[in-house]
Amino acid sequence: MKQELQPYIRKAHYYETDRMRVIHHSNYIRWFEEARVDYLDKIGLPYAKLEETGILIPVLAVNCEYLSPVIFDEQVLVTVKMTNFTGVKMTIDYEIKGASSGILKVRGQSRHCFADASLKPIRLKRDFPDIYSGFERFLEV
Amino acid sequence: MKQELQPYIRKAHYYETDRMRVIHHSNYIRWFEEARVDYLDKIGLPYAKLEETGILIPVLAVNCEYLSPVIFDEQVLVTVKMTNFTGVKMTIDYEIKGASSGILKVRGQSRHCFADASLKPIRLKRDFPDIYSGFERFLEV
Amino acid sequence: MKQELQPYIRKAHYYETDRMRVIHHSNYIRWFEEARVDYLDKIGLPYAKLEETGILIPVLAVNCEYLSPVIFDEQVLVTVKMTNFTGVKMTIDYEIKGASSGILKVRGQSRHCFADASLKPIRLKRDFPDIYSGFERFLEV
Amino acid sequence: MKQELQPYIRKAHYYETDRMRVIHHSNYIRWFEEARVDYLDKIGLPYAKLEETGILIPVLAVNCEYLSPVIFDEQVLVTVKMTNFTGVKMTIDYEIKGASSGILKVRGQSRHCFADASLKPIRLKRDFPDIYSGFERFLEV
Repeated sequence: MKQELQPYIRKAHYYETDRMRVIHHSNYIRWFEEARVDYLDKIGLPYAKLEETGILIPVLAVNCEYLSPVIFDEQVLVTVKMTNFTGVKMTIDYEIKGASSGILKVRGQSRHCFADASLKPIRLKRDFPDIYSGFERFLEV
Repeated sequence: MKQELQPYIRKAHYYETDRMRVIHHSNYIRWFEEARVDYLDKIGLPYAKLEETGILIPVLAVNCEYLSPVIFDEQVLVTVKMTNFTGVKMTIDYEIKGASSGILKVRGQSRHCFADASLKPIRLKRDFPDIYSGFERFLEV
Repeated sequence: MKQELQPYIRKAHYYETDRMRVIHHSNYIRWFEEARVDYLDKIGLPYAKLEETGILIPVLAVNCEYLSPVIFDEQVLVTVKMTNFTGVKMTIDYEIKGASSGILKVRGQSRHCFADASLKPIRLKRDFPDIYSGFERFLEV
Repeated sequence: MKQELQPYIRKAHYYETDRMRVIHHSNYIRWFEEARVDYLDKIGLPYAKLEETGILIPVLAVNCEYLSPVIFDEQVLVTVKMTNFTGVKMTIDYEIKGASSGILKVRGQSRHCFADASLKPIRLKRDFPDIYSGFERFLEV
């Protein structure tokens, strides 16, 4: 049975704003990464540990829709869902909402593969079966 | 007849690398922006001037595919194409290639609307017909 | 009597690392800013509120000494001290320590003035006496 | 006799601005790095090559004074001077000026050591005498 994971909580920093007086759109891609790292912690597969084990998770693609601006010092909640996982590739979906307003600000997705230190693809099911299972139980479809 | 515009030339900076020893994926979104600003210069509609006129071009969505890593100090060429333009919305396509290798590194797209200083949508055809024409002649379909 | 304020807690993000596999030195300047904003919250003078009141706090100078590298996912504590305050200018000192190791990683300082929305200097004692007092009681000398 | 090196030319990017509508102060530290890398190219010691040879140049300290803001799309010239060099340590001075206005915007300095891949200090004079000489002839005192 899937556990309900808490969203990642984040405050928008001053240096992330731009002269439109809102958070620059490139930063949400970074917030996705922060939330993804936090998610891996929460499912018991901390990214720093995975890297030590020789597993990198490069990004193959991202997309991001900007629905409503986030402003300086605003607190947001980032919800993370693994919506595809094969042990060779993985897809993560993100939603960023205003913590107090509940307004949906940003929606996006990142696609990944699993790779070794030289960025060669690896197959978790064959090479790291325990880690494969660790991921698989959190797949939401 | 459409003029052939030169691609935007860029070197990868040290602070843009990450511990995978390649350019962090979030930075390409920023290179798209640099290339877009350069493109607007080249088509005679510099963004700083547009903002003075009261025209902002917020980003509605981006997507980005990472095909091959860019490393520190590597020179890349960013090709920019306006593939949709209605005066209300605009779509820009990007390709980042290694300057010496010719290898396709990154491919992406950004979608925009036109807005006034308070981020309210505007219609270029009605409100700024000259600027509308300035854009339209560079539309590539 | 001065209250002991809690340090600002922060985890190092993946996108903040560089190809030396440690946090890029420019990011600590940003962590100083985050810690400064957090400090202003803690002393009851949130920066977003100050800006609404018409008070900006631009940076006049920073310096930063790098003693020991911070790595990805490491947790750090940033201690903030206001070591000079005249109502016209302000100096803030920072120390970044490893949260578990206690090792001093980075030491620095930022100097500021107070300015209005057009970046003209202002004098807090004359123009905003309550805010002047709010700052002054946290001066540590 | 010392050759006069050309300054590094740079345009301020949109994503480098903040909600004060000027370039965020942390970015000048990054421009210093860009200018330093460009300088090393110009004196015939490209940083990527140095790293391949096993020589890293970590930053020990930076300081930066903000005299006048740089705005979006403004072109600046960064002048770089090596003001101290012992083969163990090095100091670089920077000045950022508006390209058309000539106004001094930012002044700063970075201090460095030379290190191997594991960040252990090295002595260029003993370990890399040719590279030592390559640096030394550009020392300006």
